[in-house]
Amino acid sequence: MLAVFASAEPGKLDIRKVPVPVPGKGEVLVKILAAPVNPSDLAQLKTLSLSEKREISVLGIEGCGMVTACGKGLLPRLWLGKRVACTITHQYSGTWAEYMVTSASRCIPLPAEIPDEQGSMLLVNPLTALAFFNIIHNGRHKAIINTAAASALGSMIHQLEISGNIPVIHIVRTENLRKLLAGKGYKYVLNSEENDFDIKLKELALALNATIAFDATGGIMTRQLLRAIPYGGEVIVYGNLSGEQPQTDHRSLVSENKKVSGFYLANWLKDAGLFTTLNLILKARILLKRYFSIDIRGKFSLEQAQLAVETYLTGMTAGKVLLVPPSES
Amino acid sequence: MLAVFASAEPGKLDIRKVPVPVPGKGEVLVKILAAPVNPSDLAQLKTLSLSEKREISVLGIEGCGMVTACGKGLLPRLWLGKRVACTITHQYSGTWAEYMVTSASRCIPLPAEIPDEQGSMLLVNPLTALAFFNIIHNGRHKAIINTAAASALGSMIHQLEISGNIPVIHIVRTENLRKLLAGKGYKYVLNSEENDFDIKLKELALALNATIAFDATGGIMTRQLLRAIPYGGEVIVYGNLSGEQPQTDHRSLVSENKKVSGFYLANWLKDAGLFTTLNLILKARILLKRYFSIDIRGKFSLEQAQLAVETYLTGMTAGKVLLVPPSES
Repeated sequence: MLAVFASAEPGKLDIRKVPVPVPGKGEVLVKILAAPVNPSDLAQLKTLSLSEKREISVLGIEGCGMVTACGKGLLPRLWLGKRVACTITHQYSGTWAEYMVTSASRCIPLPAEIPDEQGSMLLVNPLTALAFFNIIHNGRHKAIINTAAASALGSMIHQLEISGNIPVIHIVRTENLRKLLAGKGYKYVLNSEENDFDIKLKELALALNATIAFDATGGIMTRQLLRAIPYGGEVIVYGNLSGEQPQTDHRSLVSENKKVSGFYLANWLKDAGLFTTLNLILKARILLKRYFSIDIRGKFSLEQAQLAVETYLTGMTAGKVLLVPPSES
Repeated sequence: MLAVFASAEPGKLDIRKVPVPVPGKGEVLVKILAAPVNPSDLAQLKTLSLSEKREISVLGIEGCGMVTACGKGLLPRLWLGKRVACTITHQYSGTWAEYMVTSASRCIPLPAEIPDEQGSMLLVNPLTALAFFNIIHNGRHKAIINTAAASALGSMIHQLEISGNIPVIHIVRTENLRKLLAGKGYKYVLNSEENDFDIKLKELALALNATIAFDATGGIMTRQLLRAIPYGGEVIVYGNLSGEQPQTDHRSLVSENKKVSGFYLANWLKDAGLFTTLNLILKARILLKRYFSIDIRGKFSLEQAQLAVETYLTGMTAGKVLLVPPSES
């Protein structure tokens, strides 16, 4: 089968033929129908390109496909022949390939009314948004800040803002995006390129008591968030869109008792346990049917994976880019 | 009375006459006999010089003195006429002055065998060391890392390392300091200027499972610590000896579930509550009598406060610098 790997050269992919993997106990083999390019895939690409594991680790964190073979166990047998949304569990198998092996517990059958394209994005973004609201709920936060708010994830956070009644300060990078979101009814939207952004952010964070900030960008934004949140608050970094190391602020950390931490969905789900994971997957499916229709910008074959990644990088808020393996292979 | 303030010019002091403060309910007036220059005073100096509060906030976090007047309450009356170690509680009164007002609960009577000089340093460093071990104990950490290990605080952490049986990786900046501490029987000492420091630190942190690091320096050291500690670990910044913002590492935060937070003694004690505070103060008094004799490098009058600060900055591991108000005023 054809599969996409990271090469040693930063940002470059290595697309080549490898054997189809074999599902073990509790696992299924999924024939991939569609798989998106997510920011977490780009982070994974960066990490793998520095590691020896790039040779054996197929890229692609989530996707949608048909279960064509199964290992031992009730759940694998139950999913056989079904169309599922799926995410990786196996260290070396990913969705940017014709086939992936994964744990049956990380697959969820798709209702017929959800097309392959939308189904392929069921898990990472909705689960991330739901995990954020789980963190918010457990930490009894009254309001939050989110960066890169014009992304697919940002729109899900907005849906949860409305249904969960937790005010969100949405941060975008341009005046056009600010207007776009304000026009869609987002209540608090700030443009980080405005001159008085820092002051506006701090005032709003204090007024709403936004004690937690989710940061997809890193770099200087992490410091801006750290300074803006009230005493004792926390910035959770989950992406690296700036390509720069997250900056901090000594005074915020030491005198104002603030923290910087990180979020990686796979680690968080592992810590949260199977029950929470399944619960969130079921919620995600309901939310996807109701609200989470995501704009799709383009579809590319596996051979075009390099172009797909580069297209995605030219405008990450312009819609999702999907990899679509050939329907017969 | 004479008192020392921060000026608007970074690092410069403003020494002038102001009225003697009046103790309120639960407070005492302490005639200061000696007050050290601590790293936290330098941090305070930096913060105040940027704020309007510099005009009214006397510097100096701890000291030793005679209680010469008291406000209402049992404890204030009990301390009247006694020689005490004391730390600030009042936002505007500090120990770099002839008199300070503070809460009676932040004073501890000194036994006759502890001289003024040692008694003036009873609270901040020993309480900080004890607070660190409280954090270590509550977080069930198996081993820790400490930077600026040749400081007075570093030697207290070493005493607690021995009595508490928690291995400490001590980090210093020169080969001479490494040898000095190794000669004193410190088991794990690393010199951050060595070429293979990062590798050695990571290996040792993994071998000992040192999941928490206390960082007095900030800057690049914070990132080095963050990368070295095992998965899920935490770096607690408590000083800024480098003068630079603490650096982080995206991968450590996001993929490895690590955190950066801060520690400021006054905030920590407030959160820990009165019972823990009094408990730690009693422990600190015992430890001071037994082990915590601190080298003193020089004594300066209040008029010489600028020189005192500059002397301290020329070699912070060479011993403590004390401010000593005139004995009659």
